[in-house]
Amino acid sequence: MANSADILESLNRYPPAASGSIAYNFLVPNLKGLENLLRAYDAALPTKSEDPASLQHRDAPLTPPPSPKPGQMASEPAPITSTQHPNAMGSAPLEQFSKPSLDPPHTYEISVFLAATEAFSRANTNCSIAESIDRCKAIISLAKSRSLPVRGYVSVALGCPYEGPSTPPSEVAEITASLLEMGVDEVSVADTTGMGTAPKTRELLKALFAAGISPNDLALHFHDTYGQALVNAVVGLEHGIRTFDSSVGGLGGCPFSKGATGNVSTEDLVHCLHSLGATTGVDLEEMSRIGGWISEELGRPNESRAGKAILSRLNS
Amino acid sequence: MANSADILESLNRYPPAASGSIAYNFLVPNLKGLENLLRAYDAALPTKSEDPASLQHRDAPLTPPPSPKPGQMASEPAPITSTQHPNAMGSAPLEQFSKPSLDPPHTYEISVFLAATEAFSRANTNCSIAESIDRCKAIISLAKSRSLPVRGYVSVALGCPYEGPSTPPSEVAEITASLLEMGVDEVSVADTTGMGTAPKTRELLKALFAAGISPNDLALHFHDTYGQALVNAVVGLEHGIRTFDSSVGGLGGCPFSKGATGNVSTEDLVHCLHSLGATTGVDLEEMSRIGGWISEELGRPNESRAGKAILSRLNS
Repeated sequence: MANSADILESLNRYPPAASGSIAYNFLVPNLKGLENLLRAYDAALPTKSEDPASLQHRDAPLTPPPSPKPGQMASEPAPITSTQHPNAMGSAPLEQFSKPSLDPPHTYEISVFLAATEAFSRANTNCSIAESIDRCKAIISLAKSRSLPVRGYVSVALGCPYEGPSTPPSEVAEITASLLEMGVDEVSVADTTGMGTAPKTRELLKALFAAGISPNDLALHFHDTYGQALVNAVVGLEHGIRTFDSSVGGLGGCPFSKGATGNVSTEDLVHCLHSLGATTGVDLEEMSRIGGWISEELGRPNESRAGKAILSRLNS
Repeated sequence: MANSADILESLNRYPPAASGSIAYNFLVPNLKGLENLLRAYDAALPTKSEDPASLQHRDAPLTPPPSPKPGQMASEPAPITSTQHPNAMGSAPLEQFSKPSLDPPHTYEISVFLAATEAFSRANTNCSIAESIDRCKAIISLAKSRSLPVRGYVSVALGCPYEGPSTPPSEVAEITASLLEMGVDEVSVADTTGMGTAPKTRELLKALFAAGISPNDLALHFHDTYGQALVNAVVGLEHGIRTFDSSVGGLGGCPFSKGATGNVSTEDLVHCLHSLGATTGVDLEEMSRIGGWISEELGRPNESRAGKAILSRLNS
């Protein structure tokens, strides 16, 4: 994976053609990472007045209003939302990097993550949960001083590859509450291993609410490793959660969770949400085309069942 | 696909090694098919007293009690259950073909199917729904005269490749009621195209119940083409359905429904049922091994997410 600062510089230099706002999320593993990112961020600011010639990649029509991001319900009051793996990109309004003509602007946020088990924390971040919380505190503090929105992740919340399928919900609730107290704008509670089930999801949400956490401050992040992601998402919906992470074509995985697949696919999730009457603002046929395209580009099987079925119908 | 009569003869000649009862279901497209099957069935009866040498394939240990079939809840009073595509095999007690030492015996049932839309009926069976019902009447009558259990299927109940996603629930209820009135022991209501969603499944079940049909006379048969099969199955469970069709490794498909995948995989369904506290009697690890094996034998990708995740864990 390229360095976040390099990605930011590249994005600023060659902003992708887009008809709406693109929201970028940078996963920040430590304070040094954020400092490097902020240097690139500050260096990028002068491009506001750069020569139009540098805008050659911005050749798409500008057609506001922008669609909400996949996984974000259009009817919701602009939650900070990511539809991807913590190691990928996400969203939230911040500052306009590029020319005023690019309206709405690209937006930026950062993400921090904690694990819900000590063993996963050691494997993934090489430190204890307590040390990890201290690291996050410094990152969040600096980010907030620059008015950068911050999203927190709590991984292995419904099962850990090292400690087994029964992550204590009270632990998850405690870590989630710590992140919110430190100032994160939203916490995505992640079923990294896909071991989550409907009853476990229900129990976890009850523990989070019992700890005084509002559904508006939460997102749910399911991996479809055991095929239960949509069943679990429906439980989340029933409990008032309105922000769900997903990835187009089901891309992703986790190097620390053997056999883990990517997030639940955006196409399957959106198909399910639409079937339940939700307005997502996502064009499911276009999303399916993107899933087919990127899977082919990456030489990976398209893991979205709905995506494949829709593509098959479109191509018939 | 081999002729049903040939399959029955072969099964009788070389019964597969098994520690429990194996239930066979023969899909019967017309009266001639049943007559041929019955000839093979009658011809097979003398093998009850055949020489032990012919039992060379029965080399597995006999370890009663037998496990319930995949998709059949152990706590249920022996419903007639299939876990496979209508074009495959299923279950129900009938008569012992082979030596008394093979206890419990292999069992047999037949299946008939109707479509819920005229267009699919024409494409799949080359006749109208009304003509199809007449054909079924003769088949069911002959089968019942021989005390053969009969399972009915109603295909495209939640969407049709020709008539679109909105199959009228009242039509499905009417055809289901007709099958039950003609004497079938159970009707499997099939989402052949995978277009079913949670609200549509709920609406369909309400229409079936409003027509006086009991959940005990119903099975649900979901294809995971759009990834919604488990969400729909949970809706079925909530409405009292206890019999679900599935196929190991998600095998199957439908030649008349472009892009259709197989049934929801047995492994994903059983994982979901177990997570909800149901007792199925299925050893999920063994089922996952079977799914991996048969997918490899057939040179098809293993379509079960739970199966692949469990195999990955077992092989790590």
